[in-house]
Amino acid sequence: MDNFPVVDQPNAFVDDYSEENALLVKSAVGLDSHLQKMVGNDFDSRMMQRCLELAKRATGRTSPNPLVGAVIVKDGEIVGEGFHPRAGEPHAEVFALKAAGDRARAATIYVSLEPCNHYGRTPPCSEALIAAGVAKVVVGMVDPNPLVAGGGIARLRAAGIEVVAGVDEEACQKLNEGFVHRILYKRPLGILKYAMTLDGKIATSAGHSAWVTNRDARNEVHQLRAACDAVIVGGNTVRQDNPYLTSHQEGANNPLRVVMSRSLRLPENAHLWQTTEAPTLVLTEVDANPDVKELLRKQGVEVLELTPLTPDKVMAYLYERGFCSVLWECGGILAASAIAQGAIQKILAFIAPKIIGGNNAPTPVGDLGFTTMTEALPLERVSWRVVGSDCLVEGYLPRKS
Amino acid sequence: MDNFPVVDQPNAFVDDYSEENALLVKSAVGLDSHLQKMVGNDFDSRMMQRCLELAKRATGRTSPNPLVGAVIVKDGEIVGEGFHPRAGEPHAEVFALKAAGDRARAATIYVSLEPCNHYGRTPPCSEALIAAGVAKVVVGMVDPNPLVAGGGIARLRAAGIEVVAGVDEEACQKLNEGFVHRILYKRPLGILKYAMTLDGKIATSAGHSAWVTNRDARNEVHQLRAACDAVIVGGNTVRQDNPYLTSHQEGANNPLRVVMSRSLRLPENAHLWQTTEAPTLVLTEVDANPDVKELLRKQGVEVLELTPLTPDKVMAYLYERGFCSVLWECGGILAASAIAQGAIQKILAFIAPKIIGGNNAPTPVGDLGFTTMTEALPLERVSWRVVGSDCLVEGYLPRKS
Repeated sequence: MDNFPVVDQPNAFVDDYSEENALLVKSAVGLDSHLQKMVGNDFDSRMMQRCLELAKRATGRTSPNPLVGAVIVKDGEIVGEGFHPRAGEPHAEVFALKAAGDRARAATIYVSLEPCNHYGRTPPCSEALIAAGVAKVVVGMVDPNPLVAGGGIARLRAAGIEVVAGVDEEACQKLNEGFVHRILYKRPLGILKYAMTLDGKIATSAGHSAWVTNRDARNEVHQLRAACDAVIVGGNTVRQDNPYLTSHQEGANNPLRVVMSRSLRLPENAHLWQTTEAPTLVLTEVDANPDVKELLRKQGVEVLELTPLTPDKVMAYLYERGFCSVLWECGGILAASAIAQGAIQKILAFIAPKIIGGNNAPTPVGDLGFTTMTEALPLERVSWRVVGSDCLVEGYLPRKS
Repeated sequence: MDNFPVVDQPNAFVDDYSEENALLVKSAVGLDSHLQKMVGNDFDSRMMQRCLELAKRATGRTSPNPLVGAVIVKDGEIVGEGFHPRAGEPHAEVFALKAAGDRARAATIYVSLEPCNHYGRTPPCSEALIAAGVAKVVVGMVDPNPLVAGGGIARLRAAGIEVVAGVDEEACQKLNEGFVHRILYKRPLGILKYAMTLDGKIATSAGHSAWVTNRDARNEVHQLRAACDAVIVGGNTVRQDNPYLTSHQEGANNPLRVVMSRSLRLPENAHLWQTTEAPTLVLTEVDANPDVKELLRKQGVEVLELTPLTPDKVMAYLYERGFCSVLWECGGILAASAIAQGAIQKILAFIAPKIIGGNNAPTPVGDLGFTTMTEALPLERVSWRVVGSDCLVEGYLPRKS
């Protein structure tokens, strides 16, 4: 990534998709376009899908920035492609413009996220597109920051460039839902993932849980981890399951593995303490066992005190660390606490069609203080998908009013 | 149902689809045709679907007999239809022959179950078909009794009639899975039905469960009840939920509502004790509270002692009573006991995409004595179907070896 943007600005330098230095331009473009209107034609949609493919090449590596892909099309042919590889490197448009060279003039550029319009360490992409002489810009989704949204589009239009916004918007939003959440709520998106039997258990009464789901579902979990910035468990999970929590895929991103443990009653040896493949962070409280802290640090485990140690405090810290998506792979008690504190927005439940039984076997979510069934939290935007022999249920918790 | 079969046999009289007086003719026809081979052409399949539609008109009313439909086709047109309305009335073929009259000669008859070939209170349907002069018989499934299977078909072929067997066999088998199970195992088919939240709970920690699922799923349960001969709950469910357990549909069958209660610690007033709409049977042990027995009997509730009161004993009794399908709508403890005793073959799990939480909230299946996840009972022939906003998972427990 040492080649550089072909934009005719002196000292052109890369910048983050900044949340701060943004022009305060509001726009009506696409902000409430969740009604699934069809924007653009089939060709536009194919090109936008290509942008998303390109964007995904950086899966798990761009936070706090989004995944973005760009494609430049001239006379019906792709003449340049690019994606944002990681924070601190150029934006997707810049790579695509460089690849297209002079062919960008009078061409159409497709980009999955609205081109930025603010000056940071680099001039805005909107200016680079104007300078390159593109004729048309097709945008997937507008900037998620309501104070910024539409600014890049307005700038392009003011320069006489045709702009179409909202092509495959839902897919673009979905790909960057963590980033969007981060921008809007100043927290990473919290995803609770669990695997349970058809009779609602995540383990036997004795605590054994290997494995609830089949290989296909477990592969899906590995891909999910590769797309997240951190994965969180509690001390119980370390003691019971001794998990790896890696993405188990050659070349894929491994999330930061986070253990929440107030007491630091943790085993001396655990797969999570082997940090060559992936880093581990143990979060604890100030008065926790200093010997264990020392032991963990010696093995390369980062240990940090957050007192009192709560899910919200952890998410606030991970936001500061620049994270967009955090996967909660914890047991029911910690999951309930995280839900109660608003640290979880999305549920991914794998259901295996098997019966294990157990009056006291652990279930996915502990006490939320509800006494009547009408108090249950109804998931929104629910989908059911068969994965191998199991089923993956995806849904979103209602936003707290 | 006072009109009678047009078969030229003196004293023709109806009989059950008998399990006893059967010719011991074995046949290779269709016995292991679960490989989903396509038998017959599209027209055959359409006619067999019509047979199944007709058969279903008697849903819940034919036990211990199966649901059977028959269609007679001459020159591409339906000239007679019939279905078996209930035990003690004529078989489907008899009604279809009567409706077709002389047009049955040289016609094709479609029938969802192999025509019977045994003499009971009535001559066999195979003889009636021969006498009517049909040219061809298209059969959905062969007789489930391995000692009888193929006898009717063999008799028809011996008389020079063309027979095709196995058209839409899977659908025919499915429609009568209770009957088939009854024949093969001398027990009704046990179906465990439950509704749970996405976090595996059938009620809150406080025991409240109205409602886990939405209206569409509950309608599906009502239809399910209409197709079963009995529905079983334990005393806990009566105390906690005070259910009706009826099919809530104008004109539909209501199953016998069965309560298993060793102690007879039951409320004095309960919807189940109102027996005008549907009958109720309370099963208990010999030494249970005589005052409660008296109280129940006074209200029209049947009370029976089965000592010791176990799920298998209950299923043996319901078999003797002529039942094909029994729906277990009980809580987790009784469900676990029924599974452990082999009283349940099929699981119907409704999953509602909501989170209720609860460390001690009840789950669908209590203790089965398993300590490792590898011991879990894997369901077979699993299907996932979205019903309104919920999901219905259907599967079969592995047969005990």
